[in-house]
Amino acid sequence: MTLTYATSLDSQISLAPGTQTILSGPESKAMTHYLRSKHDAILVGVGTALADDPGLTCRLTEEDGNMVDFERQPVPVIIDPRGRWNPMGSRVMLTAEAKKGKGIWWVVGEETEISEEAREYIDENGGRVVRGTVYRDGRMEWDDILQELRSQSCQSVMIEGGAGVINELLRPINRELVNSVIITMAPVWLGKGGVEVIPTREGGNEVGRLTEAKWMPLGQDIVLAGRLG
Amino acid sequence: MTLTYATSLDSQISLAPGTQTILSGPESKAMTHYLRSKHDAILVGVGTALADDPGLTCRLTEEDGNMVDFERQPVPVIIDPRGRWNPMGSRVMLTAEAKKGKGIWWVVGEETEISEEAREYIDENGGRVVRGTVYRDGRMEWDDILQELRSQSCQSVMIEGGAGVINELLRPINRELVNSVIITMAPVWLGKGGVEVIPTREGGNEVGRLTEAKWMPLGQDIVLAGRLG
Repeated sequence: MTLTYATSLDSQISLAPGTQTILSGPESKAMTHYLRSKHDAILVGVGTALADDPGLTCRLTEEDGNMVDFERQPVPVIIDPRGRWNPMGSRVMLTAEAKKGKGIWWVVGEETEISEEAREYIDENGGRVVRGTVYRDGRMEWDDILQELRSQSCQSVMIEGGAGVINELLRPINRELVNSVIITMAPVWLGKGGVEVIPTREGGNEVGRLTEAKWMPLGQDIVLAGRLG
Repeated sequence: MTLTYATSLDSQISLAPGTQTILSGPESKAMTHYLRSKHDAILVGVGTALADDPGLTCRLTEEDGNMVDFERQPVPVIIDPRGRWNPMGSRVMLTAEAKKGKGIWWVVGEETEISEEAREYIDENGGRVVRGTVYRDGRMEWDDILQELRSQSCQSVMIEGGAGVINELLRPINRELVNSVIITMAPVWLGKGGVEVIPTREGGNEVGRLTEAKWMPLGQDIVLAGRLG
């Protein structure tokens, strides 16, 4: 899996929960779409799906909005243990209806109730409702999800946020699930009270260090790419 | 003033209060000493003085520990509203005694009690006890301190931390005191529970943005230099 996020100098990825804060310059958008073209699936948490209503498609030439071929589009995946997302009217569903992107994988808990209408709408547009194990703290079992994706020829998964998913996957216990990390950082402080990427420690030591770290200036921002572990 | 700090990707500058965490590689140490040579004074908060016991001198060739001339050494300044620091046995005082660094400016509150022994020790070694206004929240009035420094030919001041001083000077109300910011960032997450550089907001918007931002890779780390305002 490739973990990606855009952040500020003070590790706040947005000003407040449920809001989208544009941090990085236009150059980073082109990079995001390039990276999407290199992955079989794009995964976001439900918070990001609700806040940003993202299309989760790959558009390689941003200027004219050209899409890559349907077959080469990544599979969009939303992790939503409690079923808070609503497919009706969402951009990812409208994109699938227009055959400009693949059907969504909506990953919910084993017991999560899904309306018949929502299920049919997703099925008709090439998507799936996927059931996963949810733990008492609300987190999902990642192995199940990744195994299911691999069984459907999705070997490479790009994680695009939000903070909940990123903080979870940066925890030492999830270390081996993540291969690469790509961070875009803007020279800005958002200040206390935003949505933070600050992973939980296990023990008193540092959480993780990137190896083979490469820093690449991109407009006013910096892109950091490296490997975990 | 030039604000400098070394941090992690998750904006934690050390693993826990009162401890020093070495984040950046050896190259950044050379940069720190070069920057010190370009400033008339080096200022730290009392937390950093207690945790790191820094020498606060300029050593341009790190390998052999060579000092720059005494006259060109920056004036060390410790901001200590409640008088928690103890000059006795501190590295900055031993350095002054050995004439390898200038006498300390120990900035305390107007009412803060200082022992006669400590005052004499500082006076004898070319230092000063400076009294400043302390507000109810424990913060000091920066204008007084800077004016006093300027009156003693200290035009350029390099702030080296810790988080308390940095977070305070990054607040929008203190914006015009800071000219340049230089941050060294290591490709590591320290995780929740460390000492954070996350400034307080005034209003709902971002706290600050650097202009003329320059990113320079330095070993495994990145150095960001820019202007505030």
